[in-house]
Amino acid sequence: MASTHILSAYDEELKYLNRRISEMGGLAEQMCGDAVRALVNSDTALAQKIISDDVILDHAEREIQDKAIVTIAKRQPMAADLREIIGTLRIAADLERVGDLGKNTAKRVIAVQGTGVPRKLARGLEHLSELALVQLKDVLDVFASRSAEKAEIIRARDEEIDAMYTSLFRELLTYMMEDPRNITSCTHLLFCAKNIERIGDHATNIAETIYYIKTGAQLEGERPKDDTANTVGAPAE
Amino acid sequence: MASTHILSAYDEELKYLNRRISEMGGLAEQMCGDAVRALVNSDTALAQKIISDDVILDHAEREIQDKAIVTIAKRQPMAADLREIIGTLRIAADLERVGDLGKNTAKRVIAVQGTGVPRKLARGLEHLSELALVQLKDVLDVFASRSAEKAEIIRARDEEIDAMYTSLFRELLTYMMEDPRNITSCTHLLFCAKNIERIGDHATNIAETIYYIKTGAQLEGERPKDDTANTVGAPAE
Repeated sequence: MASTHILSAYDEELKYLNRRISEMGGLAEQMCGDAVRALVNSDTALAQKIISDDVILDHAEREIQDKAIVTIAKRQPMAADLREIIGTLRIAADLERVGDLGKNTAKRVIAVQGTGVPRKLARGLEHLSELALVQLKDVLDVFASRSAEKAEIIRARDEEIDAMYTSLFRELLTYMMEDPRNITSCTHLLFCAKNIERIGDHATNIAETIYYIKTGAQLEGERPKDDTANTVGAPAE
Repeated sequence: MASTHILSAYDEELKYLNRRISEMGGLAEQMCGDAVRALVNSDTALAQKIISDDVILDHAEREIQDKAIVTIAKRQPMAADLREIIGTLRIAADLERVGDLGKNTAKRVIAVQGTGVPRKLARGLEHLSELALVQLKDVLDVFASRSAEKAEIIRARDEEIDAMYTSLFRELLTYMMEDPRNITSCTHLLFCAKNIERIGDHATNIAETIYYIKTGAQLEGERPKDDTANTVGAPAE
């Protein structure tokens, strides 16, 4: 009886951590989606809201960390349960970082505002952002279901985001070359595109953490990575 | 007698974790310093070495995580000791990420190779890198000494790196505007500069983690942040 009681209090604590992760995920998603909207529409009020919302994610991550430490100290969980809690801390750190990326994009709204974002580039950024945010949303659903197989599938999908980022990168370079007056704003848009591409990387991290929580092992093989944007402009061999 | 024995085995485990962190720090530092050297000297062989060394950091982080979980499960440490182990995991994650930044810079060596890095920009990147790597080295020394006061001082120094990054950012934009043929290579250099600036942010993270390990509290106040590079080109108010 006493052991059931302890077990259920422990379960409650794990549920609490999971709920907080899901809240962090929802807010991080919203911030990043809003950041691209603010960028495309030159909406500085929305940008300001995103910048101030970031503190909520910072606090949530700290709270999750403090709660996790208390839970470990009180319940003294063994290997699989410890993996769960340590994994939760990793995911909270990834989500906090996703929020930072949204905030960084929001900070660039002011720099781009004067020049406007050409329609085609705006569509490119929106599309990249949609892909990355679906990836983030899906990986958080997988976290709720704890499916190692699904985690593996999500991780494989990151390649698509990287490929789209590379194509946007090339397009931004072309705009800059066509008219030097575009250089400053397109540079900021390059960093925004990179921020969005990084959301995909964090979703990949989360997928790997879920796999680790579930199996105790690391996902085998290199991350699928089409990061040719790093070498765009390299002399042909 | 038995309790002394257990205590000392536990101390050995903590020492092991600390030694691994210090090794990770040394390698991450070296990779990032080498990456800038490879960039400035168009040294693709060195770049290739950095790219393959990154896997060592990835493995070290996983090993630290596995060891930390075993230590927690076996020793069932209480609050302060748990903070120490959880903090060590956070620092390992920061160092793994610093290695990624070095690797990303190394990957851009090929893209920049054909065009060469103008001497003045090379000096700028080297100087930024020196500042960031001193910051990283110093924060790892503070980790060894566990001084909350020194952690606070290191954190305050990040502003200098941010200011130098902003100045390099402006200079790179100028090069691009002067001659559109510089656009592709300067864009890669912009990302390299950003990578180096991010090393400073990770040193700041580590400083905050040391403070947390030592005091159980979060460092008060906003991070000192001169991130005006985000708004370079913003219309004057």
